[in-house]
Amino acid sequence: MNITEIYNHVRKRTEEICSVLNTEDYVPQPVNFVSPPKWHLAHSSWFFEEFLLKKYLPDYKIYDDDFCFLFNSYYNTVGNRTFRAERGHITRPTVAQVYDYRNYIDIHMQLLLQLKDPQVHELLELGINHEQQHQELLLTDIKYILGCNPIFPVYDVNIDWENQQNSDSGFFAFPEGVYEVGHNGDGFSFDNEHGRHKVYLEEFEISQNLITNLEYLEFIEAGGYSNFNYWLDEGWAWINENEVKAPLYWHKIDGEWHMFTMAGIQKINPEALVTHISFYEAAAFAEWKGMRLPTEFEWEAASFKLDWGKRWEWTNSAYLAYPNFKKAKGAIGEYNGKFMINQMVLRGASCATAKHHSRSTYRNFFHPNERWQFTGIRLAKK
Amino acid sequence: MNITEIYNHVRKRTEEICSVLNTEDYVPQPVNFVSPPKWHLAHSSWFFEEFLLKKYLPDYKIYDDDFCFLFNSYYNTVGNRTFRAERGHITRPTVAQVYDYRNYIDIHMQLLLQLKDPQVHELLELGINHEQQHQELLLTDIKYILGCNPIFPVYDVNIDWENQQNSDSGFFAFPEGVYEVGHNGDGFSFDNEHGRHKVYLEEFEISQNLITNLEYLEFIEAGGYSNFNYWLDEGWAWINENEVKAPLYWHKIDGEWHMFTMAGIQKINPEALVTHISFYEAAAFAEWKGMRLPTEFEWEAASFKLDWGKRWEWTNSAYLAYPNFKKAKGAIGEYNGKFMINQMVLRGASCATAKHHSRSTYRNFFHPNERWQFTGIRLAKK
Amino acid sequence: MNITEIYNHVRKRTEEICSVLNTEDYVPQPVNFVSPPKWHLAHSSWFFEEFLLKKYLPDYKIYDDDFCFLFNSYYNTVGNRTFRAERGHITRPTVAQVYDYRNYIDIHMQLLLQLKDPQVHELLELGINHEQQHQELLLTDIKYILGCNPIFPVYDVNIDWENQQNSDSGFFAFPEGVYEVGHNGDGFSFDNEHGRHKVYLEEFEISQNLITNLEYLEFIEAGGYSNFNYWLDEGWAWINENEVKAPLYWHKIDGEWHMFTMAGIQKINPEALVTHISFYEAAAFAEWKGMRLPTEFEWEAASFKLDWGKRWEWTNSAYLAYPNFKKAKGAIGEYNGKFMINQMVLRGASCATAKHHSRSTYRNFFHPNERWQFTGIRLAKK
Amino acid sequence: MNITEIYNHVRKRTEEICSVLNTEDYVPQPVNFVSPPKWHLAHSSWFFEEFLLKKYLPDYKIYDDDFCFLFNSYYNTVGNRTFRAERGHITRPTVAQVYDYRNYIDIHMQLLLQLKDPQVHELLELGINHEQQHQELLLTDIKYILGCNPIFPVYDVNIDWENQQNSDSGFFAFPEGVYEVGHNGDGFSFDNEHGRHKVYLEEFEISQNLITNLEYLEFIEAGGYSNFNYWLDEGWAWINENEVKAPLYWHKIDGEWHMFTMAGIQKINPEALVTHISFYEAAAFAEWKGMRLPTEFEWEAASFKLDWGKRWEWTNSAYLAYPNFKKAKGAIGEYNGKFMINQMVLRGASCATAKHHSRSTYRNFFHPNERWQFTGIRLAKK
Repeated sequence: MNITEIYNHVRKRTEEICSVLNTEDYVPQPVNFVSPPKWHLAHSSWFFEEFLLKKYLPDYKIYDDDFCFLFNSYYNTVGNRTFRAERGHITRPTVAQVYDYRNYIDIHMQLLLQLKDPQVHELLELGINHEQQHQELLLTDIKYILGCNPIFPVYDVNIDWENQQNSDSGFFAFPEGVYEVGHNGDGFSFDNEHGRHKVYLEEFEISQNLITNLEYLEFIEAGGYSNFNYWLDEGWAWINENEVKAPLYWHKIDGEWHMFTMAGIQKINPEALVTHISFYEAAAFAEWKGMRLPTEFEWEAASFKLDWGKRWEWTNSAYLAYPNFKKAKGAIGEYNGKFMINQMVLRGASCATAKHHSRSTYRNFFHPNERWQFTGIRLAKK
Repeated sequence: MNITEIYNHVRKRTEEICSVLNTEDYVPQPVNFVSPPKWHLAHSSWFFEEFLLKKYLPDYKIYDDDFCFLFNSYYNTVGNRTFRAERGHITRPTVAQVYDYRNYIDIHMQLLLQLKDPQVHELLELGINHEQQHQELLLTDIKYILGCNPIFPVYDVNIDWENQQNSDSGFFAFPEGVYEVGHNGDGFSFDNEHGRHKVYLEEFEISQNLITNLEYLEFIEAGGYSNFNYWLDEGWAWINENEVKAPLYWHKIDGEWHMFTMAGIQKINPEALVTHISFYEAAAFAEWKGMRLPTEFEWEAASFKLDWGKRWEWTNSAYLAYPNFKKAKGAIGEYNGKFMINQMVLRGASCATAKHHSRSTYRNFFHPNERWQFTGIRLAKK
Repeated sequence: MNITEIYNHVRKRTEEICSVLNTEDYVPQPVNFVSPPKWHLAHSSWFFEEFLLKKYLPDYKIYDDDFCFLFNSYYNTVGNRTFRAERGHITRPTVAQVYDYRNYIDIHMQLLLQLKDPQVHELLELGINHEQQHQELLLTDIKYILGCNPIFPVYDVNIDWENQQNSDSGFFAFPEGVYEVGHNGDGFSFDNEHGRHKVYLEEFEISQNLITNLEYLEFIEAGGYSNFNYWLDEGWAWINENEVKAPLYWHKIDGEWHMFTMAGIQKINPEALVTHISFYEAAAFAEWKGMRLPTEFEWEAASFKLDWGKRWEWTNSAYLAYPNFKKAKGAIGEYNGKFMINQMVLRGASCATAKHHSRSTYRNFFHPNERWQFTGIRLAKK
Repeated sequence: MNITEIYNHVRKRTEEICSVLNTEDYVPQPVNFVSPPKWHLAHSSWFFEEFLLKKYLPDYKIYDDDFCFLFNSYYNTVGNRTFRAERGHITRPTVAQVYDYRNYIDIHMQLLLQLKDPQVHELLELGINHEQQHQELLLTDIKYILGCNPIFPVYDVNIDWENQQNSDSGFFAFPEGVYEVGHNGDGFSFDNEHGRHKVYLEEFEISQNLITNLEYLEFIEAGGYSNFNYWLDEGWAWINENEVKAPLYWHKIDGEWHMFTMAGIQKINPEALVTHISFYEAAAFAEWKGMRLPTEFEWEAASFKLDWGKRWEWTNSAYLAYPNFKKAKGAIGEYNGKFMINQMVLRGASCATAKHHSRSTYRNFFHPNERWQFTGIRLAKK
């Protein structure tokens, strides 16, 4: 596919994700970290308008001035943003108007793409990858919104993500030595994975399989959530304040564990990979097992051996700048760098990640208590 | 109109109120005290189902079990209720399904009304008055939802409520003595206005006119919001914590005061009656004027002389039980009595009140900081 | 006793209350509504300095400018006040310095009292009554501070307040009619009990005895704290949010109810009058009994028949202005009026009230959730 | 000094730190992260009782069972702990009783030390180092408590810590390559600095001097606190929510910057090293300078060249486990490992650190918003 085809394909995929929603489903923001589907649709379009059309398409007329501040996310450089926590109270523009906005952007993007302006390429790739990131958030935010509803609506009965299983087992061993990590420059990549550099790793072993629901149930039944010895101090406070006793979306119904899935409420499948796990839970599980989580560099060094793409895998690495990290100038510089505090790196990809979006150097990151993504656990040991 | 016609008329009016809404507008709950329009539509129908159809219509089949707990409000007797603060996150049932529910209830209510069961009459009147109360809340909640939107959507350009003016002026004087207050038994009334009883009032004077925007602006410009001497201690804390500097919906745009109205954003009309005032503000204004708010009994004694129906008028009476107050048995007993703490009585009616719904003995009540109703100020003095 | 003797007697009594404290006990403010004993000692002295010595004693030299803002309470007129919530973090001036301040004030008050300035009399009486109010708060705040300590320190083994019992039983009946309430002008009284005025009361009956621990235990054992039918809506929310299951200071130890008293931890005495009850609990108890709390006017009309002085008795009257209520000019005007919102009136006096301080027209007031005073329950019925 | 002399010396030093306090100063806990001096005195004694005397001194009699749960800190293994936020409300045991407890522990420790039990040595060293850590916290907590007081009490006029200056300037350059970091096993060290291991560092330069007040004032005056471009996203939220506009303890008085010091309030000394800086501020300052903070490994590799010991220096490394990190068994295992989340590493030592306590491999750690320690800024660049 050429870049125009990729653009069109990705844009269409975003709308496909929303095709089974009712208008009402596009509106709410049940918690701060979830955004209304309507907002994702508009914001990913705003990104192309703000960073491409306004600058590179001659005589481009902004669709609507109001959209600029309504659908900006965190780009302080661009202007006053709407308070993030209030996104769910904004009923206008309507969903229909947002789709009209998308259409308007797409029509003008076709014009821009015909100009074949070489300056545009890098930002275009960023916009496409940005939209793919929002596709994953759309899916996990829709799951969260539906999961808030006591009547547990189904998103799609044909999606079987929560039942994915391992295809491998056992541990791989890696020797001590200098390894290279980080992106080497070919193909698209985010600034946070530049530049390629050397790290020194001690000898380590990394598991070929992810933890299953069965293994996680053993942890629960062994009293994992009530023994402070397994927990980081802040993790222990977190489970107690929030009365966490199981992964997100798990419900005990008539004495049996169930899970809310994209296909509705289901009994826990013991063979399936556990998911919707916070870093705190992943670390406590590893402690209980007498092992540990891999670092992001161990993971990357081992990645060529791993089957991955089912769950985002928590690492024991904090999300920090690589040596020689450079922020881009202007608003694009706000993309990644300013989030480099109090977050942990996840590696791999999940069932909800857009195809061909991730890679072995990709650094995803969330706060240690966040678990509405399709996260999972891979263990390491020395 | 007979009771069936009244029922049909009131039910139709509720839907008229929503006729200009988009689907998205039915969903959010921006603050705890506001409910989504969808919820009002369903809840007022649920009331007829729960208290009339289930008990008095032979072979009635409940529309949907889920609706019972989704659209119950605070009737603890009836079953587990949804948490009030989460109403805005429930996207299903959809708006269309809620209208279908209304229709189902109305069809069965026609059947019930044809039975002419005399037992039904009292609960039917209560249900109709309950729906009228929710009509007013629908209007004020819709205004709140639209007013949260930085682009200030219009509800109806033909509504001119915020520009209503006084038709009278001056003070009426009333002599000291025993007066009778409370409802005397003819026509529908709520339990909180029973039973009629004597009160002893000192000599008092009550104003024939309500306070205007012009008078309120004088208070603002005289530093009313920055001089603690005018304020109750909790009122002073409230304006400081919330940075309150003017009535709700007032915005200073380019140095000039504007107000968000049902017809959109407008410049303040100095002749119009001030509205969206908390009890704290009403009491501070009165203190600044060297007067006071009337008690609810002074108001009721004077009511035959007053032109009212434009603004709910704050009184200096706490919402408490009348002598001989009796709670009804069962869930209906939860209607009013359990709210008799920390709220102040408002008398009269407002531009948003359903016609023929209020009366001179009617007791409305809100917390002293609440001001999203069409409230106003009438002064009294000795 | 002449006024100088009364002054000296009251000032000495304040220090007696603190005589068994350790220096450490004078410092903490465990919750916002409790003040450190050190603060009470200084603040009651500051009152005499601010309102009497500075104005009426020629050539009076202020003890220390810092004390003016450290020990002001809520008198906005006088200057910047310390934030109330921070009182427990202020370690200097020390306790010894505060006693030195008291001594300095007392020496200068002797000089002022010798002048026999008639202007001084009214403020002097207010200062003495103010100090008596703080004596009661000192006792209840000390109890609260000691009660926070998991090792339950004893204040005074000889105090037997929590074991006081009823001396009467049965109900008195009063006929319908006009009654006079409020203070008539002889002797000291607070502005909130002026002026004497007529009220019309329906026929009522009021109990001669207060509720005992035994009766209250019956309410607990009958599931009183888990049946919403007995509770005001905000009371129900309050007990659930705070996990309230019994009066303040009750602890279940090895399956048996105990109570922290001024004399340490003791088993519940069934004959003793229940105390440390919120308005919410008093109202729920009355509802469970099929009765109600008296209004403050019923209480006052009946007071000549009642034995009282053991517990502050919650009434079902909100704390609001009497007809003809006038605020004094200046800072003294802040004494009572500005608290007339969201509080309920208590009548009588408690075991901790200074002798001769209360009277039948006295209006005490607290928020409906507050219960660290020695409060109790008297029932009424029609 | 032999180990007994060291023990006695360190214990005496703790009491010297408190020698100028009044009894009242020992009591408050103004914020969660500060502990009352009384608590530090007791807790550091409890450590010796719990981990040494109870286990290794024959026939040892516990001083008081209550002290075990009152003065435990976060050692969940040992038993129920007091809630950390309530430490400031516990007035008993008194300060005198706490000193008596210290004395009792010291007497029994002499007995234990005479036994020369080799098993004891490691825990004894840990207890001494633990007490030294609390000496530094005592000093910074005392400063915080005094700094809360609007009258700014002096701790010691002879302490000149806040006026310390640089003795070097310029940058050192280090070449790319493998470096060794971590403790190598000689002398006491904490588990978090084990074991010595290789890291690969890119070429870097590190400053010989720390940032001064003058340089930091330039940042303030250049609008550093109002330009989001310099800040991490959570840092930007933190300064806005807390209205942070300068380092902790800075006050603008009559238009001039002052600082609360151990010796009282003083004008800012431009030559002195800036201190009481959060990680957020350090990172923003570095961004503004176009440089960055060093990683903890760069710092350690360069440490033999650096003059340090005046300010704890924020690094851009998260506090995480080293390869081969092993938790000790039992309660001692809770010492460090469970805090390895959401904290950043500081290296070096400060003016308030006990002599000979720190070393080049020492890893101190605090949350990125914490700044009541004597923290400072050292820059690095590539």
